[in-house]
Amino acid sequence: MEIEIVTIGDEILSGAVINTNAAYIGQRLLEAGFKVSRQFTVCDEAHSLKEGLKEALGRSQIVIATGGLGPTCDDLTKDVAAEIFSSDLHFSEKVAEDLKKRFKNRPISLEQQATIPDKANFFLNSLGTAPGLIFKDKNLLLILLPGVPQELQAMVDLSLIPYLLQYYPPYQKIYQKKATFALLSESEVDPFVRDLKAKFPSVALGIYPEHGVLKITCTGEIVQEVDAVILELREKYKNHFFESPSSSIEEMVHILFSQNKKTLAFAESMTGGMLSKEMVKFAGASNYFLGSCVAYSNALKQSLLHVPKETIEKYGAVSEQTVLAMLEGIFKITEAEYGIAVTGIAGLAGDLEDKSVGTVWGAISARNQEPFAEKFFALGNRQTIILYSCRRLLFNLVKYMQKNEL
Amino acid sequence: MEIEIVTIGDEILSGAVINTNAAYIGQRLLEAGFKVSRQFTVCDEAHSLKEGLKEALGRSQIVIATGGLGPTCDDLTKDVAAEIFSSDLHFSEKVAEDLKKRFKNRPISLEQQATIPDKANFFLNSLGTAPGLIFKDKNLLLILLPGVPQELQAMVDLSLIPYLLQYYPPYQKIYQKKATFALLSESEVDPFVRDLKAKFPSVALGIYPEHGVLKITCTGEIVQEVDAVILELREKYKNHFFESPSSSIEEMVHILFSQNKKTLAFAESMTGGMLSKEMVKFAGASNYFLGSCVAYSNALKQSLLHVPKETIEKYGAVSEQTVLAMLEGIFKITEAEYGIAVTGIAGLAGDLEDKSVGTVWGAISARNQEPFAEKFFALGNRQTIILYSCRRLLFNLVKYMQKNEL
Repeated sequence: MEIEIVTIGDEILSGAVINTNAAYIGQRLLEAGFKVSRQFTVCDEAHSLKEGLKEALGRSQIVIATGGLGPTCDDLTKDVAAEIFSSDLHFSEKVAEDLKKRFKNRPISLEQQATIPDKANFFLNSLGTAPGLIFKDKNLLLILLPGVPQELQAMVDLSLIPYLLQYYPPYQKIYQKKATFALLSESEVDPFVRDLKAKFPSVALGIYPEHGVLKITCTGEIVQEVDAVILELREKYKNHFFESPSSSIEEMVHILFSQNKKTLAFAESMTGGMLSKEMVKFAGASNYFLGSCVAYSNALKQSLLHVPKETIEKYGAVSEQTVLAMLEGIFKITEAEYGIAVTGIAGLAGDLEDKSVGTVWGAISARNQEPFAEKFFALGNRQTIILYSCRRLLFNLVKYMQKNEL
Repeated sequence: MEIEIVTIGDEILSGAVINTNAAYIGQRLLEAGFKVSRQFTVCDEAHSLKEGLKEALGRSQIVIATGGLGPTCDDLTKDVAAEIFSSDLHFSEKVAEDLKKRFKNRPISLEQQATIPDKANFFLNSLGTAPGLIFKDKNLLLILLPGVPQELQAMVDLSLIPYLLQYYPPYQKIYQKKATFALLSESEVDPFVRDLKAKFPSVALGIYPEHGVLKITCTGEIVQEVDAVILELREKYKNHFFESPSSSIEEMVHILFSQNKKTLAFAESMTGGMLSKEMVKFAGASNYFLGSCVAYSNALKQSLLHVPKETIEKYGAVSEQTVLAMLEGIFKITEAEYGIAVTGIAGLAGDLEDKSVGTVWGAISARNQEPFAEKFFALGNRQTIILYSCRRLLFNLVKYMQKNEL
């Protein structure tokens, strides 16, 4: 059973809008055991749209299209689909009733939005005005969903997935599991992944490196084999393996500190507040996260973090001595039980030949304990150097706590 | 001249990765006057990939494909394209030389990455290991670009666009101009945009709101009309209009401070380092940005920022008195000439009914000048509340400086 996703809109082709809808539908379908075989984007123009939908219906049994269901003149999807299925349109009392109930006195294009093709069923839209539309003809299924991301997401979860599972259950369910690893490169795992592929040919492996986090997905029809591959990966790279609901290192730290009721503070230079910002994105961070001293200038390293002027002058702002003094400083000026300090060179204005770009010194400690300090090199541009450094430091914090049984 | 973008990878179809590459290419092409007629995504499997590329080449004169050029076993694009163009492969000394120079002793798959099809030209990759590949056959052009976003972006800017402009200049140039506005909502501009559409029917308008920034794009073939629409929009909303190379408020602040040689520091609570992180993403931020005191806990507001305990107890951590005391504090502990302080409620763990979520107090001042303080409400979830607040404060900083002629 081939499933294809069609996203409609000039704004996607021109890059004004990033296609998060296709990703959302793909993800939810996969979780429900369906596999998307193709995705494409066409422009708002009626002829291209009609050709695109017909082409998809000629190729795939299930076509899910999104966008172009609003009330404006750009919104052609409903009419084009009605044409393809040779259907007239009528005013649906049921849709109108739902819209009136939800929008009360707010101005909406009721006449337009409650008019649906005779040959289509509908999904009510729990947030917006455009209902989803379902065209069925022999073995073909075309489902139209609204393009506004929140409306689309609600309709996928509340209507699309239950509908497909009831009427078009996957012949052969697809299982996808994933494992996440920190500070492990794609080239390090590649030989082992090749061995696994040979050993478990029924399982497709995907490797997604992203600035310090390597996500490996295992997809296949035999759940035992998918599980076996995940198990082998976790075992082989057990020092790098981690898990958290969002598959992020930050959330692992958040959960750890939420549970152990210890407090945490940072002394940041190069990362410029990113380390801190990564922690406060979780609700409840204020229970353990005290704050961060972003001492971007050397003057602030001295005045706020009490780094001796001589240390910076003698060893430089990016040095083991300076990062350890910053760490000491954050323990002095806060009551935090754990601290991270970081200083480095994320980039330079002008001098592109500077070899030191990407050099980072990080230090981690519990209060009054032996600190762990390390120098490392981060690759990429300014932003990816900062991001990688934050993730590396947070992962090393967890390792530090495990090693010292803290 | 039809241009089509093919993105390659199971990870895009399954939603594991959001297709930012297609958006980036589409955007850059449009800026150069090219219009993308279609975009599609195929999986990594050799047969589908080959069929997909052949189909695109059968339909469009220029096909730009991205992904699958790495050294791992999933990376099939180079071989599949060589097959389509009946080309053997050879080891390219030029590519190898570039890789050796850039990667020195770091381990890379040199043999694999420097092997390219005989019938292809190449674009060097300024950041990663996979060169871009250009296949030309009669009227067909297939260009393969790496899938890693940073590498792709650099190659699009440095190689793809100049190459297309030189050898395939657009017949009928499309002009897209955009204008960006801060703190303006879609519903506020909608009536005026409708009027503009009626007045300039040749121009297509797109409105894209994103957490404090409203981007309006104007697209058409008549440059005078596109310009006229932009002018009317700028004039109508001149108090909200801003511009910077990345269309971000942060960069406008960055440019302003880089030019006026004033210094800047923050006292952050709710934004948790985000305000600071937004500034350090620009090269040269260290010339004016001193740092930020992220006093997430009330204890740090007192000990680091010298906010009187009584102020917090009497008025609360989210109050005009506290935010003004934080602002005073940042001027005390740094030598900054400008400061922003912010405190608010981005979300609560547990109590979802709390009406105060989204309440923010911000204060802005030049040293020893009358501060500007305001309370506002930000909508959305934890992260969008933080993001909107940062943008609002930075935009208001610029307005404050303009108003006080500072």
